[in-house]
Amino acid sequence: MKKLVGKLIGLAFISMLAVSCGGDKQSSGDVVKSQKTFKWKLVTSWPKNFPGLGTAPENFAKLVNEMSGGRLTVKVYGAGEIVPGFEVFDAVSQGTAQMGHAASYYWKGKMPAAPIFTAIPFGFNAQETNGWLHYGGGIEMWRELYKPFGVIPFAGGNTGVQAAGWFKKEINSVADLQGLKIRIPGLGGEVMKKLGAVPVALTGGELFTSLQSGAIDATEWVGPYNDLAFGFHKVAEHYYTSGWHEPGAMLEFTVNEKAYNELPKDLQKIVEVATRAINQDMLDEYTARNNNAMETLKNKHGVVFKSFPNDVMAALKQASNEVIAEQEASDETFAKIMKSYRQFQLQVSEYHNLSEVEYYKNREQ
Amino acid sequence: MKKLVGKLIGLAFISMLAVSCGGDKQSSGDVVKSQKTFKWKLVTSWPKNFPGLGTAPENFAKLVNEMSGGRLTVKVYGAGEIVPGFEVFDAVSQGTAQMGHAASYYWKGKMPAAPIFTAIPFGFNAQETNGWLHYGGGIEMWRELYKPFGVIPFAGGNTGVQAAGWFKKEINSVADLQGLKIRIPGLGGEVMKKLGAVPVALTGGELFTSLQSGAIDATEWVGPYNDLAFGFHKVAEHYYTSGWHEPGAMLEFTVNEKAYNELPKDLQKIVEVATRAINQDMLDEYTARNNNAMETLKNKHGVVFKSFPNDVMAALKQASNEVIAEQEASDETFAKIMKSYRQFQLQVSEYHNLSEVEYYKNREQ
Repeated sequence: MKKLVGKLIGLAFISMLAVSCGGDKQSSGDVVKSQKTFKWKLVTSWPKNFPGLGTAPENFAKLVNEMSGGRLTVKVYGAGEIVPGFEVFDAVSQGTAQMGHAASYYWKGKMPAAPIFTAIPFGFNAQETNGWLHYGGGIEMWRELYKPFGVIPFAGGNTGVQAAGWFKKEINSVADLQGLKIRIPGLGGEVMKKLGAVPVALTGGELFTSLQSGAIDATEWVGPYNDLAFGFHKVAEHYYTSGWHEPGAMLEFTVNEKAYNELPKDLQKIVEVATRAINQDMLDEYTARNNNAMETLKNKHGVVFKSFPNDVMAALKQASNEVIAEQEASDETFAKIMKSYRQFQLQVSEYHNLSEVEYYKNREQ
Repeated sequence: MKKLVGKLIGLAFISMLAVSCGGDKQSSGDVVKSQKTFKWKLVTSWPKNFPGLGTAPENFAKLVNEMSGGRLTVKVYGAGEIVPGFEVFDAVSQGTAQMGHAASYYWKGKMPAAPIFTAIPFGFNAQETNGWLHYGGGIEMWRELYKPFGVIPFAGGNTGVQAAGWFKKEINSVADLQGLKIRIPGLGGEVMKKLGAVPVALTGGELFTSLQSGAIDATEWVGPYNDLAFGFHKVAEHYYTSGWHEPGAMLEFTVNEKAYNELPKDLQKIVEVATRAINQDMLDEYTARNNNAMETLKNKHGVVFKSFPNDVMAALKQASNEVIAEQEASDETFAKIMKSYRQFQLQVSEYHNLSEVEYYKNREQ
């Protein structure tokens, strides 16, 4: 083998010499380029290599490194390695890191409209989110929203419909939500508050012990694949999988605008297309792995997958409408973006009722 | 070991460049490369620039051209420009063109298992197709199937649930299918035949006049966006949108293996990632544009969107199961791939019933 490696290096040596020097020796179709190399940092809101959420940026870095032939190398950092998970946006805005991977609703305090680009309760599922974003004007409005911070957003993966979460006691009526301490971020948290619950903001790493100690009574996280990894079934009995608050939760890649503009056009395009590929790849992974995790939870751990009673779901929907209306009234940008979102949803849900929903029904008959 | 050799060659490549070229003019981080350029032809089964199906390969070519900085340029040809639409696979296999864009079920005569990679009646929708393909072993089996022809397949876009089609007379019972001349390719055609209809193979460009002249009584094509473009509403009164035969029709990019192997690693990766991005992009486009087309068909042209009666749908499902069982019995490869497909579908449909379907239901309440 050593010999083979030696030979190959030798061959590489010779061909490189032949190819890389003296452009006059090149055939007419060749291009000689001097290429600057770039080393980027990508900070994330997730534990390093956390399934799905954390592997997506690693996969992104790999694609970019390979497509650029090493001209742009991206190194991924887990939450807390350079900055805490909730400071990813600031780090990218200030140029501490050239890129970030997180969820837009973490920046709600800075921009009330930001959560629209993660999920709207009773809004788009994954396919609809992608349709609106790329062919319904969504991404242009997202870019405009982040522009004052010198940050460019790209879709960064989708988990599909997220589960309503893990509860220590059963939810039989809206009254059972009164005083319930539940970890739920974004607009979903506002909705829960309206129904009398107490939404709590905690990062993923804090959830298991908080639920175990009784510091919280319930938590949503993602769905079977990620929830199994955290072991919530050991500390909460009731798993409600019927989603409502994040029906197609989108993650985000963010890029420092100045760093992006310093890249040559081909590397800019490589970054953009890699985000697009990863955006699909994450959903593919969740679609495949949620099933297996569901089987494990059911068959190995005896977890029962439940739905909220109809009146609880109806109350959540009513409260969601109120929360969205309040956000629209208090923030012009939220109202403007939501107008586009709602128009698209009206149409897409009418068509999906005739196509996707009708098909799911016919398949099961 | 292969990986190690690859790494060593990579290292040799970079270090040789540093050594062999006038490094004095470069800043320390720069890389000088002499790069061979490649000019590829991409032949398709669609009219040049046909909405969705035909714009996807154009978009692909644009991404590759930009990401490669002009080192790999791809020129797209419509059906009939170099080879007819149904000869795309042969052209790629023989190297007449380096790439193709088509649908795998057109190659059913050559490989009975090929239609699985377009759609299975009552099988996966788009999201499930992508999950199985990239995280359920699907793409590996597809590669193996095309390997003897020197062709490498990649997912090439998805239309979502396809409509059942346009019919000159109403379908009120299974008896109405007797003797019906309907354009429907792939396994869907076999199913129709089993119920007494006469499936006809025609390319897209022939459909309007065939329907108009009465040469056929019905046709399926894609869905509102593409169907409106062909103007079928002018020549057939009844539009059945409830899909069953192609619930998530996947297109394909094919690459001549020898041409692919001649590319350097970075350009290979650029081709692969661009197909992945376009695979999502096409679905995004259909998701957005089917709605608008539906509104136009309804409000401007007075088209009523109909579903087949339950007993017709049940008969189609029963016949689909029989057709698939026959294919499994007569072709080992079909049976092997279908085993993986069915196992994945059992799990994913159980999970989607709890997540996507449950969500669609709750959203409408």
